[in-house]
Amino acid sequence: MRTTQLYAPTLRETPADAEVISHQLMLRAGLIRKAAGGVYTYLPLAWRVLKKIEAIVRDEMDAAGGQELSMPIIQPAELWHETGRWDVYGDEMFRLKDRHDRSFCLGPTHEEMITSLVRSDVRSYRQLPIMLYQIQNKYRDEIRPRFGLMRGREFIMKDLYSFDKDEAGLEVSYQKMYDAYTNIFSRCGLKFRAVEADGGAIGGSNTHEFMVIAESGEAAIVYCEACEYAANVEKAELKPIVADPEAGLALEMVETPGTKTIEAVAKLLGVDIKKNIKAVAFQNEKEEVVLAFVRGDHEVNDIKLQNVVGAITLTMASEESIRAVGGVPGFMSPIGIKGAKIVVDSTVMEMHNAIGGANKEDRHYKNINPKRDFKETIVTDIRLITEGDPCPHCGAALKTARGIEAGQVFKLGTKYSEALKATFLDENGRDKPMVMGCYGVGVSRTMAAAIEQNFDEHGIIWPAALAPYTVAVVPVNAKDEAQMEIAEKIYAELQANGVEVIIDDRKERAGVKFKDADLIGYPLRITVGPKTVNEDAIEVKVRRSGEAFVYTQAEYLEGVKQLIVNL
Amino acid sequence: MRTTQLYAPTLRETPADAEVISHQLMLRAGLIRKAAGGVYTYLPLAWRVLKKIEAIVRDEMDAAGGQELSMPIIQPAELWHETGRWDVYGDEMFRLKDRHDRSFCLGPTHEEMITSLVRSDVRSYRQLPIMLYQIQNKYRDEIRPRFGLMRGREFIMKDLYSFDKDEAGLEVSYQKMYDAYTNIFSRCGLKFRAVEADGGAIGGSNTHEFMVIAESGEAAIVYCEACEYAANVEKAELKPIVADPEAGLALEMVETPGTKTIEAVAKLLGVDIKKNIKAVAFQNEKEEVVLAFVRGDHEVNDIKLQNVVGAITLTMASEESIRAVGGVPGFMSPIGIKGAKIVVDSTVMEMHNAIGGANKEDRHYKNINPKRDFKETIVTDIRLITEGDPCPHCGAALKTARGIEAGQVFKLGTKYSEALKATFLDENGRDKPMVMGCYGVGVSRTMAAAIEQNFDEHGIIWPAALAPYTVAVVPVNAKDEAQMEIAEKIYAELQANGVEVIIDDRKERAGVKFKDADLIGYPLRITVGPKTVNEDAIEVKVRRSGEAFVYTQAEYLEGVKQLIVNL
Repeated sequence: MRTTQLYAPTLRETPADAEVISHQLMLRAGLIRKAAGGVYTYLPLAWRVLKKIEAIVRDEMDAAGGQELSMPIIQPAELWHETGRWDVYGDEMFRLKDRHDRSFCLGPTHEEMITSLVRSDVRSYRQLPIMLYQIQNKYRDEIRPRFGLMRGREFIMKDLYSFDKDEAGLEVSYQKMYDAYTNIFSRCGLKFRAVEADGGAIGGSNTHEFMVIAESGEAAIVYCEACEYAANVEKAELKPIVADPEAGLALEMVETPGTKTIEAVAKLLGVDIKKNIKAVAFQNEKEEVVLAFVRGDHEVNDIKLQNVVGAITLTMASEESIRAVGGVPGFMSPIGIKGAKIVVDSTVMEMHNAIGGANKEDRHYKNINPKRDFKETIVTDIRLITEGDPCPHCGAALKTARGIEAGQVFKLGTKYSEALKATFLDENGRDKPMVMGCYGVGVSRTMAAAIEQNFDEHGIIWPAALAPYTVAVVPVNAKDEAQMEIAEKIYAELQANGVEVIIDDRKERAGVKFKDADLIGYPLRITVGPKTVNEDAIEVKVRRSGEAFVYTQAEYLEGVKQLIVNL
Repeated sequence: MRTTQLYAPTLRETPADAEVISHQLMLRAGLIRKAAGGVYTYLPLAWRVLKKIEAIVRDEMDAAGGQELSMPIIQPAELWHETGRWDVYGDEMFRLKDRHDRSFCLGPTHEEMITSLVRSDVRSYRQLPIMLYQIQNKYRDEIRPRFGLMRGREFIMKDLYSFDKDEAGLEVSYQKMYDAYTNIFSRCGLKFRAVEADGGAIGGSNTHEFMVIAESGEAAIVYCEACEYAANVEKAELKPIVADPEAGLALEMVETPGTKTIEAVAKLLGVDIKKNIKAVAFQNEKEEVVLAFVRGDHEVNDIKLQNVVGAITLTMASEESIRAVGGVPGFMSPIGIKGAKIVVDSTVMEMHNAIGGANKEDRHYKNINPKRDFKETIVTDIRLITEGDPCPHCGAALKTARGIEAGQVFKLGTKYSEALKATFLDENGRDKPMVMGCYGVGVSRTMAAAIEQNFDEHGIIWPAALAPYTVAVVPVNAKDEAQMEIAEKIYAELQANGVEVIIDDRKERAGVKFKDADLIGYPLRITVGPKTVNEDAIEVKVRRSGEAFVYTQAEYLEGVKQLIVNL
């Protein structure tokens, strides 16, 4: 491709309404343009990237036994009434009526459609398992579309649906997809983790999210470098941390004037904050007080706490309501509380001779031994997992990271097959609902996530597998015939060698062309300038590392090939 | 691919609501399933065919300088208000509102969207010409969707838009697209004609339709085998047919009792119907009588006649109104008519000593010489062109055919660039509107048209370039190990040789498997049966011709390769 013939209008300024880096860089590099809120045109460079992601996805889906088809984007409401989801989806679903006043939606997902297809054509266990998938625009009317392609209203998804005759079959299908997804994100050249996650609105239990690691990610995760364990922070399994044994000393009240924080009391008493018990006071929707206790260096996981006490909402408790149950804000422990739900984290129960509030103004207890001193409390895991926590599988210290959800695999079970009566006759002639799974990859989101993970102050740094072109040949002066001749020769030779290459044949200043090459993020840039003409020196620069290599015309082809292998 | 793993549920019965052969065969062969009226799921075999058509289209668009991008399917109403088409499109446009009550449509076409894109990024003549295209679902809310994929409400289109700095540039772009379209339909293996056509609602002048020839086609066309001329029948240029000169004889009234048709009077008088003048009586929306005269073997082209007399509607005239202008039904000529518009076809004016009505009951004139005898008439081309008419370009006898419109190329000019203010600065620094063209291929319709052109009583006969698989290997008895071993070997060898092959490994009767292979329409079928095992005889059958070839295991591979080359 020649830059003079490429529709990739780059921008010097960062558009004001672009909040995240992928959105900014995609606009500036001429990859996308906004058509409406959350609705974008993919320009030729972005389209090439998307086609590469799609090709990888397609390849892995086919290898896993998937068959590609294409279902309609407009779906009749009747199907969605059968599962009850027409009402559940609410405002997030785009709806329309045809000229005969029949209702349709723009598919946010296709469980109804695929199940209705399969129920009409599959009758026997002999026809199972089946895996069908498509790559297609999906629609979600986000209340506040933002972050460019990270949360759009029209976006590209791959969705695969598996149909098995039993749970054992689903396990096999699920594992095939899990492995395929691992291959997909590996082949895309992305750092990612598959994490245990919650089912969310789509239903089903036992699901994994594939998180592309990026500081801007919306989700917090923990992962183990020693084994494969990884999980969403909210979902992560915890093991109580057992402290070294100590002889229990007698409970002792001490004066701790003005020490309303863990840090203050620890400093005053000259102990580590890990020796302290932290109290957090909530109230539920009925204004009942819920007191949560975790170790001084830990945080409460609101979501787990809410589930433990069966609350619909949990908000901070008022001072008045804390005092009503015998608590003193800043000086609380479970000792002496009456009429509140008390939830103590398992790790707290393993502490010895700990510091905690005395439920009196400016007073703390020393030598609290929870197993001895706490009564009528709920004990469970309510803390947030943190960096360094032991891996629940292998015990090694966990790492934390932020991630962008780019894929998810679900076990659906028989939720949709029962609602839509998608049954088959088993080996014994009995009618049974098919056991389903569904598996999504956000194709356009993966492109955005790749940028969130790979950029610097100059622009995008594409992983080699996703780059729109691998090599940019930049003649420093397109009006210089000697330079252009060599540049054209290199361009032709690389093409002949199967390298995806673009030549910047614009009559622009070299600086403009270098800036655009860095902004768009081609993995390699070959500069053809006066030194090439006069000294037979071709410079090849690696976008990611910034390293520059100099070759003669005789050597450069082998050099470039080697650099590509190592990208 | 293995048939046991392929989702292609074939049907024995033809579904009752399928009217045309492509619809019937696509349902029966397990290619498509209906989701709603005019809305279909493409199953894996159809999806393979569509991907092949898309690949050919993409290849030709790229070769012609097109760049692929992807615009949104949901388009904001504001853009359509700028061109006024929000109102023009009427009920055919699917419309919806988002949660904030903003109006969108589902794109029936993308002139507004692409023009708005280009206007914001292109400023200078140096950036022109540009050709941008996409392959995507399009939407049209047909009042009566029918004929399967021939007239659906959701369908796949390739649409390319060209932007040039002047008319000369548009001519170049148009010709590139015309040539690319010729390549596309040739490479698809279809018999087709590019015909001159009318612009229709989308606007623009000078357009060609690419018609796939099929008896079931909705459009009637004429074409010349001696030169490249072809046209829609309604649009075809006509030349008056000049009869051999004859001396004009005196007008003579003769008795022709009961001869109200051309055939009857010609028989009675013992002359060819070409010696007769045929009368057809219409009335317009104001109930004024319009009498049209063509040669006895010709038909009136209603559309041309309507344009000639400036009528909004033309319906058959009542007997009463005919008599009011001096006409006698069944015995009419222009001679003696008063108070009606008389339109005479140019060819009639070239007749000598012709037969025509005398405007008296049971009487005709002999020896009418129109140039001598007709007064106050409009003379122009109002007949329908017919098989055998001379080609307006080369004079050779024209052929007629019916066609399915699968592609169309338009010169749009500045209609959209002016409405949307898509201007550029020319070489002299003057602001000018871009000169546009648009070019569509109906991808899903091309698949249906391919079937309408290529089928027999047993099913589809795919052109080789579009076939979902080229070869089907059919072991007669899948339970016979010796047969299966040879069949698997052939399957593996063909795959290794780059042949797209499917093996029917189902434990079904041979008859069922043969029927399915014929129905789906694989170009070649290889039968592995007892004769293969016992006599080293492999039968290869050509779907289109029905010819069967027998090879040994040593020879078959070369034989199949040769047959594929000749498909």
